Parts: sequence; C-alpha cells; structure tokens
Amino acid sequence: MGTKLIGIVAPAARLDPLIAERLRLVAGDIENGPHLFLHPQCFLSDGHFAGDDDARARAFLDVANDPHFHAVWIARGGYGSCRIAQRVLSELNGYAREKLYLGYSDAGFLLAGLYAKGCRVAHGPMPADLARPGGEAAVLRALSWLNAADPAALEASLVDGTPAAAFNMVVLSHLMGTPLEPDLSDHVLMLEEVSEYLYAIDRTMFHLSTQAALRRVAGIRLGRVSDIPPNDPVFVENEEEIVKRWCGAAKIPYLGRADIGHDADNKIVPFGRR
Amino acid sequence: MGTKLIGIVAPAARLDPLIAERLRLVAGDIENGPHLFLHPQCFLSDGHFAGDDDARARAFLDVANDPHFHAVWIARGGYGSCRIAQRVLSELNGYAREKLYLGYSDAGFLLAGLYAKGCRVAHGPMPADLARPGGEAAVLRALSWLNAADPAALEASLVDGTPAAAFNMVVLSHLMGTPLEPDLSDHVLMLEEVSEYLYAIDRTMFHLSTQAALRRVAGIRLGRVSDIPPNDPVFVENEEEIVKRWCGAAKIPYLGRADIGHDADNKIVPFGRR
Repeated sequence: MGTKLIGIVAPAARLDPLIAERLRLVAGDIENGPHLFLHPQCFLSDGHFAGDDDARARAFLDVANDPHFHAVWIARGGYGSCRIAQRVLSELNGYAREKLYLGYSDAGFLLAGLYAKGCRVAHGPMPADLARPGGEAAVLRALSWLNAADPAALEASLVDGTPAAAFNMVVLSHLMGTPLEPDLSDHVLMLEEVSEYLYAIDRTMFHLSTQAALRRVAGIRLGRVSDIPPNDPVFVENEEEIVKRWCGAAKIPYLGRADIGHDADNKIVPFGRR
Repeated sequence: MGTKLIGIVAPAARLDPLIAERLRLVAGDIENGPHLFLHPQCFLSDGHFAGDDDARARAFLDVANDPHFHAVWIARGGYGSCRIAQRVLSELNGYAREKLYLGYSDAGFLLAGLYAKGCRVAHGPMPADLARPGGEAAVLRALSWLNAADPAALEASLVDGTPAAAFNMVVLSHLMGTPLEPDLSDHVLMLEEVSEYLYAIDRTMFHLSTQAALRRVAGIRLGRVSDIPPNDPVFVENEEEIVKRWCGAAKIPYLGRADIGHDADNKIVPFGRR
C-alpha cells in the first residue's frame, strides 16, 4: 500500500508556522503515516485572512484538483471560507470528487458546498487544534482517519445506514438559503458552538429549527457548547434545554448529545451514509 | 379629530420604569398629542425577557387585537420577539390589520412577520431610545409619525411608489427561510447594525446577498453601523466597502447610505409602497 499524500490549505485564517512545525513532528512519528504537504498559502497574511480571496481559492483548487492528493485537510477555522466557496465549487474537476475533505467550524461553509456537490467530506479536527490542551490527540485522530479510515476516530453515535452531518450552529445558520446549502433530509444533524451567548444560541436555534429544509432532518444531536460568555441577565435555560425546546416546537426529534466540539475530544463525523 | 391611542408593549427586553416616566412627560407636552397606554407587561421580568413568552405574546395581542388602539409601539429591542412571533401572528384578528406597528432592532422579527401578513409596519424609534443622547428627538419623531403621519419623520431617500423595508442585518439574516420572511421583491432594502465585528458583518452580508429571495430586491442602502468592536487583525475594508462588494458579487444595486441606525437620528421607514 502506497503512502497517502494529504494536502493542507487555509481557506480562512493563517496557520502559525510553529504549529505547522509541531504538526510535521507529530505526523513524522506515525509508523506508515501519511505524507503532509503544507501549501505555502497557509502562511500568507492579508488582514483577517491567510492571503487574499484569490490566493486562498487557488490554493484550495491546487490541492483539490490534483490527483496525487488523497485528502484536503483544512488547517484552521476563523472566518473566510464563505468568501471563496462559490468560486472553489465552480472550478473543481473530477479528481476533486475522489478525495476526502476534513475540517470544522468556519470550514463548514466549504464542507456544506462540497457535500452538496457529491464530495466526501467530514467534520473533525484540524492542524490548528495542536494549540489546544491535549490537541495532539485530536490531530492523531484526524490523521488516523484520513490515512487509514480508523473507525475508532468516529463519533460513537453514528449508525451504519443513517446519514449524518455536523456543523457549527452559526455557520449552518449563515449558509441556509445560500448556494452552499446541502440537502440534510433524513440526516442526523450534529451541532456544536463556541463563544456565543445563550441568547444568541437561542436566536440561532429559532432560525435553524423553523427552516422548512431543516424540519426534514431525522433528528438533532447537540455537541459541546464551550466558552459561553455570561448572559446578563441570566438566561435561565442552559444550551441543551434551549435546543430541546426549539426541536420540540418544530417537531424535530432531539436525539441527545454528540461527541463533537471546539476541543481536543472532537470526534469525526463523515457526512452522508457510510 | 379624536385623540389617538397608542399601545406600548415589550416583546423582548423589559422597559425601565424611569424611561416610561420620562416618556409620559415627553408625550404629555405635545399639543393635541396621542394618549399612551403602557401595557403593564412592559415592566415584567423573567430572566432575559419582559415576562415569559406567554405573557409577552398575550400583551402584544391585547393591544394589536383591540380596536381602540391606533398603533402598537414596541418599547424596546434586546432579544425575544422571534420566540413569540409565530403565536402572535396566528392569533391576530381583523382589527390588528388596521393599525400601525413601529419598532426596530429585535422588533424586526415581528415587523417582518406582520408585513408578510399584510399589516402596516414601520422601522423607527422606540421608547427605550430616551436612554440615548438626544433620544427625546427620536421619540418625538416617532410620536409625530404615529399620531399625525408627519412626513418630516420619514427617511429622506424614500420615493413615492417604490416599496421599502428596513432591518437590522443580523435580525434579517436570522429570519430568512423562516415563516417570518416577507417578500422583499422590488423593495429598497435598508440595513443597519450595531456592536458587531466587521468580520461578522461580512459573514452576514454573505448570507443575505446570496439568498435567492434577496437577489430580487430593487437595491440595498446601508444605514449606520455603530459601536463596531476592533477587529484583530484589522479587517482592511470598512462596513460600506463590505456591503458594496457583496452587492456587486450578487448583482444587487448598491444605492448609497440610509438615514437609519441605533441612534437618536434613526428616521422612519414605512414598509411597502406609500
């Protein structure tokens, strides 16, 4: 079996070169591990972004459209994928459909659009997770899945034959009704969030649960919601009570918690039916 | 001509009783001014909200469905209108269609749904604006429009025969695709924002400008965007450059600035054709 080549690009924020160096060391220690190609675009800087929209779109296409790569691994979240997603999606070639795409958070804009185009995408850890406490485990989990489809990397509630998808709540809210919106009918939809007020989570759940398109999901699971700033005044309900209430009002089955989130324990959720 | 009765309710956050007292004094000084009824619900408190969802919905319906009231004036923004909007809309009677509704910010959820139902709604100052510097002028403007349809209260770019609507950006983004979404085809759409990062404004403009429904507007005008927290790193573009770029990409005409915002100068924008 040949060693797999994984291309890393940064469609949103720039990757810290020190994190890239740690990534090389971590990946280099894996027996029969993959080869990593860190696209130089990862280290560009243009205001908020890892290079301007053109540079980020071209880098993504460089890797996605090249048959030598087994997978496209998104380096980091932040903000910026939605600015290049429509161009990227319109310029993908046939090789792009044969590879894996992995990321989460802001990368959800691209995952959504790629999934809508029939690509194989998954929600899971990114290289920048090395900056988190315990982040090495997250990166090793991602690499074992990208390189060897390790089933131990998968979110434990996934069921063969039931399609799934996972998103950051705010990202999904901001792609509904856009050309990036995928068909999530009959999917178990997992949602996670970070650094949002409870009132804003409530507002986002209003938006998501009352969309006709999302009322067709098989159910919703709630991942971890971390770093919630204090609500003033106190919101009374917690994040799970909020999600349960909106699911109840929309007659969307609430299926319990999901093992995903902005943390080192973030498990992998391949989109669609396995 | 009889004196008009204006009912004030708080579908989101509670109204400060001291602001209510100042409102009574300001309105009492107007010659042939309207009578104000401050629904006691305005002063309830339930966590984040001016009373629980049931209390807020019932208060809104008390005033909207009562033929004695000429107008429903929303006391204050905050967060909470979307939680009661669907119930309120389903229980409106025939009298509700004959009156005016005025508010902005979070009240946009209700204005949108009421407009979609054929009611006469307008984006403009609220009683809580008395807490702003110069806020008395905003409240007098609202009262002169509610009581006497004073044309001097109107946003100056409004043109007879061209329908208009105005929203807070984030509120409009969160009601697209929901049962509250109004048909804004051929409308001049005015947008304003407060206390959002430039990257978040960019993300909201992606969401709005790529919606098929919003590509049918006659054009977009940008109101004031105030209290923008510093972006780290610097975002490079300002709010008008962001809106122009997304409008350009979506082929939505950008029509210039609008005289609305979270401030005392906020002018009145009646929805629809005058």
